Amino acid sequence: MTLSKQEIPTQSYLLETEEILHSDIEKQVMQLFSLSRINAENIDELIDDISDNFLGADTASSDIDLDSLATKFCDSRVPSHPANLDKYLEYLSDNVIAHAIHTASPKFIGHMTSALPYFVQPLAKLMTAMNQNSVKIETAKSLSFYERQALAMLHRQIYNFSDNFYAEHIQNSQSTLGILTSGGTTANITAMWCARNAVLGAKDDFLGVEKEGLTAALNFYGYKGAAIIGSELMHFSFDKAADLLGIGNRGLMKIPVDSNNRVRVRSLRQAVAKCREQNLCIIAIIGIAGTTDSGGLDPLLDIAEIAQEANVHFHVDAAWGGPLIFSQQHRSKIAGIEQANSVTIDGHKQLYLPMGIGMLFMREPYIAQSIEKQASYTMRKGSFDLGKRALEGSRPGMALFLHAGLNLIGSQGYEFLIDEGIRKTQYMANRIRSMPEFELLAEPDTNLLLYRYIPESLRELVVKKQLTETDNLFINQFNEHLQKKQRQAGHTFISRTMKTSNCFSQEISIVALRAVLANPLTTEDDIDAVLNDQIQIASEIYMPTSSENVA
Amino acid sequence: MTLSKQEIPTQSYLLETEEILHSDIEKQVMQLFSLSRINAENIDELIDDISDNFLGADTASSDIDLDSLATKFCDSRVPSHPANLDKYLEYLSDNVIAHAIHTASPKFIGHMTSALPYFVQPLAKLMTAMNQNSVKIETAKSLSFYERQALAMLHRQIYNFSDNFYAEHIQNSQSTLGILTSGGTTANITAMWCARNAVLGAKDDFLGVEKEGLTAALNFYGYKGAAIIGSELMHFSFDKAADLLGIGNRGLMKIPVDSNNRVRVRSLRQAVAKCREQNLCIIAIIGIAGTTDSGGLDPLLDIAEIAQEANVHFHVDAAWGGPLIFSQQHRSKIAGIEQANSVTIDGHKQLYLPMGIGMLFMREPYIAQSIEKQASYTMRKGSFDLGKRALEGSRPGMALFLHAGLNLIGSQGYEFLIDEGIRKTQYMANRIRSMPEFELLAEPDTNLLLYRYIPESLRELVVKKQLTETDNLFINQFNEHLQKKQRQAGHTFISRTMKTSNCFSQEISIVALRAVLANPLTTEDDIDAVLNDQIQIASEIYMPTSSENVA
Repeated sequence: MTLSKQEIPTQSYLLETEEILHSDIEKQVMQLFSLSRINAENIDELIDDISDNFLGADTASSDIDLDSLATKFCDSRVPSHPANLDKYLEYLSDNVIAHAIHTASPKFIGHMTSALPYFVQPLAKLMTAMNQNSVKIETAKSLSFYERQALAMLHRQIYNFSDNFYAEHIQNSQSTLGILTSGGTTANITAMWCARNAVLGAKDDFLGVEKEGLTAALNFYGYKGAAIIGSELMHFSFDKAADLLGIGNRGLMKIPVDSNNRVRVRSLRQAVAKCREQNLCIIAIIGIAGTTDSGGLDPLLDIAEIAQEANVHFHVDAAWGGPLIFSQQHRSKIAGIEQANSVTIDGHKQLYLPMGIGMLFMREPYIAQSIEKQASYTMRKGSFDLGKRALEGSRPGMALFLHAGLNLIGSQGYEFLIDEGIRKTQYMANRIRSMPEFELLAEPDTNLLLYRYIPESLRELVVKKQLTETDNLFINQFNEHLQKKQRQAGHTFISRTMKTSNCFSQEISIVALRAVLANPLTTEDDIDAVLNDQIQIASEIYMPTSSENVA
Repeated sequence: MTLSKQEIPTQSYLLETEEILHSDIEKQVMQLFSLSRINAENIDELIDDISDNFLGADTASSDIDLDSLATKFCDSRVPSHPANLDKYLEYLSDNVIAHAIHTASPKFIGHMTSALPYFVQPLAKLMTAMNQNSVKIETAKSLSFYERQALAMLHRQIYNFSDNFYAEHIQNSQSTLGILTSGGTTANITAMWCARNAVLGAKDDFLGVEKEGLTAALNFYGYKGAAIIGSELMHFSFDKAADLLGIGNRGLMKIPVDSNNRVRVRSLRQAVAKCREQNLCIIAIIGIAGTTDSGGLDPLLDIAEIAQEANVHFHVDAAWGGPLIFSQQHRSKIAGIEQANSVTIDGHKQLYLPMGIGMLFMREPYIAQSIEKQASYTMRKGSFDLGKRALEGSRPGMALFLHAGLNLIGSQGYEFLIDEGIRKTQYMANRIRSMPEFELLAEPDTNLLLYRYIPESLRELVVKKQLTETDNLFINQFNEHLQKKQRQAGHTFISRTMKTSNCFSQEISIVALRAVLANPLTTEDDIDAVLNDQIQIASEIYMPTSSENVA
């Protein structure tokens, strides 16, 4: 979208003044930093009202279209004078908040973002007031130890090592039980980085891949190339990792999945053998505990066995499904996770913490030394600086949320949340099975659900399993259109994805509607409302089928 | 530090209950997610009190030693039941907040973290309440456009292209004027990633480094290796980048600096020629606008010329010094930044925003396509999803702070803050020059200052420039000890670094005290207080010199 200069709306919250003297700027700026704040309580109240109003919304979003919305944000000039705070908040409320997504809405059940416990809001304010930088002890002091503790708590939930193990490593600056990152992507990339540097490390005269680079390392160890092996449903952070690390996406071996979205173990084993034959260095074998696509769970015990036989780093991407460790009923579904050399879990997914909390856990407390870096102005060897072994540098004290979540929700609280999500998913699956308008596309492993709407004229063929490729193409178009209309209207929200499926022994791509049932506020009535909203929207779509055209 | 099991203190905020029924867990957890919050205002008030109390502290930190502090955080068990919120906050206040660093204190002038404007606190609460995920339009809608606008505003401050340029690109999903990252490290890594993928991209039958990997790419283009060239004072994120990207730290060519900590242009030019001779692919040439070490500014115009002649990506790491663009008085010091192909600026440094805001700006709006990735469940081609071209995936709506900062402080507000920091640094430099107790180690370019304390017995030799290597070693030990004692006492804070210096034509390492003058609340009296605190602490240190030993 391109606007001509005349069309660009000016920002209305700018001060309407002719000229402001320098001393006025100084006064205004210093006022912003002052502790004796005039009107501070007023701002707090205003923002609390905006927040509560936003959180109280029952719909998924406003119905403004993206192009119209974009035109509101086309002025690229930085105002020269400080804007009036009240006016700016008014602008913010009318233009940004009004058209943001109600991720906490009980009818927004299409992505991995949902309602959060209330305490994270005041904690966010506290974290910002404290303004610690967790990269080093000199700007984080207590928070460094507090973060190590919180990570050790989750490490223990995964690996359950002895009391002595945790006593030895929890506050030992040489050990890394976990790394707090900005998200699961960074955690996955860090895991691949550690694994690559460990397997291609220093030996004899060779200084290791870190110092000498990938080409020299592969040469030294006599490999023709490198590979990462995992399911075709691996998160796209592994594409990033393979690219970044110089392996290339060609080295990212994507193994097909079965109809339940689990990696085919036999194919995985064959891929490992093929890498050996072709003399490729296997950096890691990936198991997924909750695919982003469908929540599918790989058979981790089988993958662990393959990795162990091949003596290869086993990484589990449990960004989504990791918190199943809290559920007595469902924990067995991810059995094998405790054998992983590294595990990714996101705090901002099923730990119900704010966005920006990824974690990487390590079975072996010294493996992160393979990525250690120092700098003379900080990050000194032997120090407690957490930034020594991390991809990121400066970062906020997000450990506040993690530690608080683990304590204020507790393991049984998390168990309840996990169990509830899976229970509601079964409810939704049953509803879909019972409604002729929909087709369930896979049995849900956890709390993601793939299904699609079937236009009336094709329902009989679905039941008889006689849909042709053309029919499927038509249904695809219909569902894509339906999802977009539903999103645009904003009453409810379901996302969509692509799924490969068999159609008369031929692989075809299917557009799937994708529900994520993680919001504790979502009730069975809300689920019904979302499905009914889709039926209503579908009834308003007129799209002639090819057969109707012929008729 | 290792504790035996008996020594581990239990967490005192756990509920003292025998057993809690399942329905009670449900009730407690659902209460945390409920909008009709019992005691919500009470929590807010409590946390506001804790925050205000923390921010009001005049000292740099408590005086607890690290080992004692670590023992408070050694319990690795996740409590089974939700803890009592009031008790948890009490625990947090007594154990974490009490021993966190007062980064906003006017006497904490040793790191790049300082006081923030008040409005970021309520905004943090709002951001957390909104819980947008900026990775995709379906979880961020308005915030995606708002973020693009904020980035374009800073892009314009750097590059100052035409109105038409911004009208064309500001909300064009094909263009990337900037990428919001979790920090400067990620921004620098992303810059090197883009540069590598662009220079070793697809050509003829070759699919590019992204697909085929680094070894194949270097082979195809006929290179023997790859290099990144910059000053020896480059931030350690470039060590991470060289390692991650498979180039190896050996490929990170560190060029010596002059006595003002600026890269030596002639050496840089020679390094480029050497790479050409050795048939190395130069990924990028780096200019630094504010070294982490000393705030030094590389001669960007000269480096730009070298990069242009060599036809190599020119990246400026302006994480610290970028906001000098707002100062009419000082902007010329970073002239040449507008010729950079990419520029890193940190929001959480001299834009006075909360931790977790890095930015990468691109001169050419399409270069980020070299790192573009898609995924079927999101990140669709042609979409407005910001996560398509980014190292990170899910991330919080930090654009709220950036946009608000640019508008509520304004360009003249930032100009005032930058000018003030430099003015106060000159004040401190003058004070140090006038005091026999200290030696200034370099003329400050901006608002970082390197100096050291000179023990009385050696002051005459300093004036006469007759310090031996042994004397310098002694002074080093003294200053390291001084900095640690000062940090431990917690009244004031100055950091330390290492600096190479000439001593009788021999290169030696000097321990430098490092002041960062960025806190708007720091007055000249505070600066005097910090220096006097150091003199006082130094007077309590008894450390015999070798000459005294002889005597």
